[in-house]
Order: sequence, then C-alpha cells, then structure tokens
Amino acid sequence: MLQIIFYVAVVAEAMTAALAAGRRKMDWFGVCVLACVTALGGGTMRDTFLGHYPLTWVADPWLLVICCAAALATIALARFMAALRWPFLLLDALGLVVFTIIGCNVALEMGQPTIIVIVSGLVTGIVGGILRDVLCNDVPLVFSSELYATVAIVAGLLYTYGLQFGIVQDALIVGVVLIGFALRVAAIVFKLEMPKFVYDKDIR
Amino acid sequence: MLQIIFYVAVVAEAMTAALAAGRRKMDWFGVCVLACVTALGGGTMRDTFLGHYPLTWVADPWLLVICCAAALATIALARFMAALRWPFLLLDALGLVVFTIIGCNVALEMGQPTIIVIVSGLVTGIVGGILRDVLCNDVPLVFSSELYATVAIVAGLLYTYGLQFGIVQDALIVGVVLIGFALRVAAIVFKLEMPKFVYDKDIR
Amino acid sequence: MLQIIFYVAVVAEAMTAALAAGRRKMDWFGVCVLACVTALGGGTMRDTFLGHYPLTWVADPWLLVICCAAALATIALARFMAALRWPFLLLDALGLVVFTIIGCNVALEMGQPTIIVIVSGLVTGIVGGILRDVLCNDVPLVFSSELYATVAIVAGLLYTYGLQFGIVQDALIVGVVLIGFALRVAAIVFKLEMPKFVYDKDIR
Repeated sequence: MLQIIFYVAVVAEAMTAALAAGRRKMDWFGVCVLACVTALGGGTMRDTFLGHYPLTWVADPWLLVICCAAALATIALARFMAALRWPFLLLDALGLVVFTIIGCNVALEMGQPTIIVIVSGLVTGIVGGILRDVLCNDVPLVFSSELYATVAIVAGLLYTYGLQFGIVQDALIVGVVLIGFALRVAAIVFKLEMPKFVYDKDIR
Repeated sequence: MLQIIFYVAVVAEAMTAALAAGRRKMDWFGVCVLACVTALGGGTMRDTFLGHYPLTWVADPWLLVICCAAALATIALARFMAALRWPFLLLDALGLVVFTIIGCNVALEMGQPTIIVIVSGLVTGIVGGILRDVLCNDVPLVFSSELYATVAIVAGLLYTYGLQFGIVQDALIVGVVLIGFALRVAAIVFKLEMPKFVYDKDIR
Repeated sequence: MLQIIFYVAVVAEAMTAALAAGRRKMDWFGVCVLACVTALGGGTMRDTFLGHYPLTWVADPWLLVICCAAALATIALARFMAALRWPFLLLDALGLVVFTIIGCNVALEMGQPTIIVIVSGLVTGIVGGILRDVLCNDVPLVFSSELYATVAIVAGLLYTYGLQFGIVQDALIVGVVLIGFALRVAAIVFKLEMPKFVYDKDIR
C-alpha cells in the first residue's frame, strides 16, 4: 500500500521536475536527469547520511526508468499540464507525506534515536526539491514558500510518537497521511507560511 | 592504457575547469578546488552512490596534486588557451568516453545490473561538469548544449553489451573510445543537440 | 577543550548562516536548515568522502538542536548583530581552525596519508560555507575573498607535521589555534588575498 503510493509519488515528483526543466529550456536528457534527481534525491541523501546501502534506486533500478518515462510523458503532455495544476499539487502533497513516512521507517529500522528519525523523514521528503532548485539555479523554494517542510516534520513527529504509543502501524500510516495531506492542502489554499526572517545589513 | 588516458583526461578536465574559474575571477585556491571537483567529482559521486570505498582520490591522493598542478599551469598559460580550443575539446571528448568506461567497470566489478552499470558510467562522465557549473552559479551546460551525456550513454551501452556479447575487452575499449570520440566530435562540429523542452507556464 | 571550542564554533557558524538566510528572506525553517548545513556540512562531507560512519550529527543529534536554537536566537537578536560583527569574525576564525584540526584528527585516526589528512581538515573547515553559498545562489565566497581556505591549509600542515615531529598534542593544538587565528585575523584586517585568476575569453 505504502509502496504503491510511493511509486505514484515518484511519478508526480518526476513530472513536476520535468516542468521545472522545461522552464529552463533543458533538453530531453536534462529533463530526465532533473526528474530522477528530484524524485530520488531525497532518499539518496538520506541513505548516504545514514550509511544505508544499497541506495533505493541502485537496489531497484526500475525507479530510474519510471522517472525518465514520467519525464518524457510530461513533455508529450505539456499542453495539458496547466489544467492539471490541482491534481499535481494533491499528488505532491500525498507524496511528501509518504516519502516522509518511508524515510522515518528507514531510520527506525536502523535503531536511530527519535531526532534522527524525524530528520530522516524530513530529508527524504524535501531534499529532492532542494536539489531540483539548485540545479535550476534558484534559491530553494522550500525555504520561503507555503508550509512544506513543516508538514514533513509534523508527519514525522506524529508517526514516530504514534508508534511509540503503540498505535497499530497500518492505522497510524493512514492517519498520518490524512493529517499531513490536509495540512499541506490547507497551507496551499490559505497560503499558510512560516514567519520570514528578513535581514538586510551586510555584516560579513 | 586506460589508466594513462585517464590521467590525461583528468588533466584536461582540470584545465577547462580552471578557465571556468578564471571567468568567475576566482583566486588561485578557488581555481584548484574547482579543478579537483570537476576532474574527480564524477568518480566521487559514483563511489558514494555505490558505497564503493575508498574513493579514487583518497586511495591515490596524487590525483589531487595533479589537478592542482594542471590548474596552476593553466593560470600561467592562460594567454595561449584561446589557441588551444580544439586540442582541449578533443581531450575532453576522449576523457568523457574514458571516464564513462571506467565508471562502467566499477559497477561491473560490483556485480550491478545493466541499468546501474550505464548510470555509473554516465555519472562518472558528466557529474564533474555539473558540479563545476553549480559552483560557478550556472545552470549546468550538460542539460542544454550539444550531445554530451548522450555520448556517455551510448558509450556505456556499447561497452556493456559488447562485454556481454563476449568481445575481447581491450578491442572493445578501443572500439568504444573511437565511436564515442567520433560521436562527440560530430556533435560539436555539426552542433547536434537533443530536442529541447520549452515550457513557460508557471504552474507551481 | 577542543570539544568545547567545537560547540562554540558550531554556534558561531550557525548564527552567521542565519544572517545569510535572512538576507535571502528565508522563513524560520529555511534559517534552521541553512544553519545546520553550514555548521555541520563540512564534517558531513568529510565523513562521506572517508566512509567514516556514523556522521557526527547522527551520532550526536543534539548538534542539530544546538544549530536550530542558535539560528532562532539570531532571529530574535538580529537588531544587535551589526554591533557584533567583530566577535563573530573572531569566533568564525577560531571555528575555522578548530574544525580543521578536528577534520585532521578524523583522517589521522583512520591512518590516511598526509595529503588526505590536510584535505580532510580543509573540507571540514570550508565546505559548510560553500554549501551555504550554493543554497543562497551565490558563487562561494571562499573562492575569491580574503585568506580563509589558506588558513585551513596552513593550520592542517602545521598540525600534521607537528605531530610527526613528536610535539605533544595539547601544546600543538594550542599553538596551531593561535597561529591560524592570528593569520585569519591578519587576513581580515589587512585584506590579504590570494592572487586572482581573471580570464574573460569564452573558449568553450
């Protein structure tokens, strides 16, 4: 179940990355690389940090094929994408929570302490988007737009403490996905943002 | 033989990186770092992805010295560099194919599946240039200019399937290098490019 | 002793990173991430390069909490920061040398050759700032401003050869910290810079 939503989320991430690549006028190869980096970069960085080998996509190389296929499909379907804004935002919200839970599970299986479990979920959820923005030469969106990382942190906290309080894992996953999803959608609809820190003196 | 061309390629990559650093008005230290990152970054990322330790330059630290020496020599010889455009492009083309073959070999020795072997060659061939462009604050060139990554993929495919069809390794390496080199030179001469994906709506 | 200065340096790095984040108008989450990446990124990359697991902050997750707390304190105290320019520069100079020594120690304990020991110290000292600048979409400052990386290299050389010449470790650490600190402060006061390499032809 989590695995199926994971594949759906990978596809959704790859497709939004392809659109970002198109905005930078990348060629088809660049579109595929950006799709793979965005969809799989979070898990790759998590596994590198934790020394958790083999990486997900090395163990299951079809993920790369899926990302490239999703990216090329996006090129073919580009004219319809504007109409699909909301489906994408919803899939992306779903993916964020699912990536987070999967990341928490990896750290839990390694017996990491709670802070690392939360960070592992967070890294899995948001680093793909950060790498996408760095490769597109932007300041990462996640550092300044509507609640996104916060959703990952909240989902990670609920999941980790839910398990510690003995809630059945399947029920917990459903609950965390619903709450995280609702929080992210609310953030988009109501433009919920973290307070910004604006500093304009040049002290260095 | 492959090893000798590898060192030549490392020097060529380090020198082109030094010129890129000069365009950003970096100091001598920055020039050396950019040279090392560009020449050795692809292999470093490949080994990190595959959990293949020690890294090439940790096992053979003279590579770092070679890169820095090549970078500083480039500063001394900068006035002659414009005349050396073609030698550099040719060495770079040679290096691309050799890096790719070396990357494939690493994955093959680890018993990775074919997709990962190709990706390993690709990462070894192109990631150094991507890191160079990110550190110079550019969108990576490899995502939008003449065929470059495609050459690495073609070379990786030929090499991997050539080995599977039982071609003698030495003959295969010579053949792949010649074909890859010719393809890259043709791409430069005839400005062969992958089709671009241009998307200008802002859906996120 | 080294451990205490290490924590002070982590806090100082986190606070300067928070100011950089404020200049990019990041939100509180972005400020915390940039603080963690800047303060802990050098050690993370060193450990990844050397295959030295677990990473410092995975083994000691309180470091993440300290970085976030320092970052949030910086937001609260932002109006006083301009007056604190010199204390910060001094703490940053101290931190640079201490990070470098700690990085050298990690490589020495792994029995790495001298070049790798120096590089390990250098990476620990400067990579955090490079990652901060990449995430802020700048060309890394360390490649073109006053002596900074050079201080790390000099400190690493003094420390490594001092140990080889049999100097007592504690005395050596004090000496290296003093010399490195003095060199960095002199670089800021007298605007000591490495020579720049300026190249403006477009050969690629």
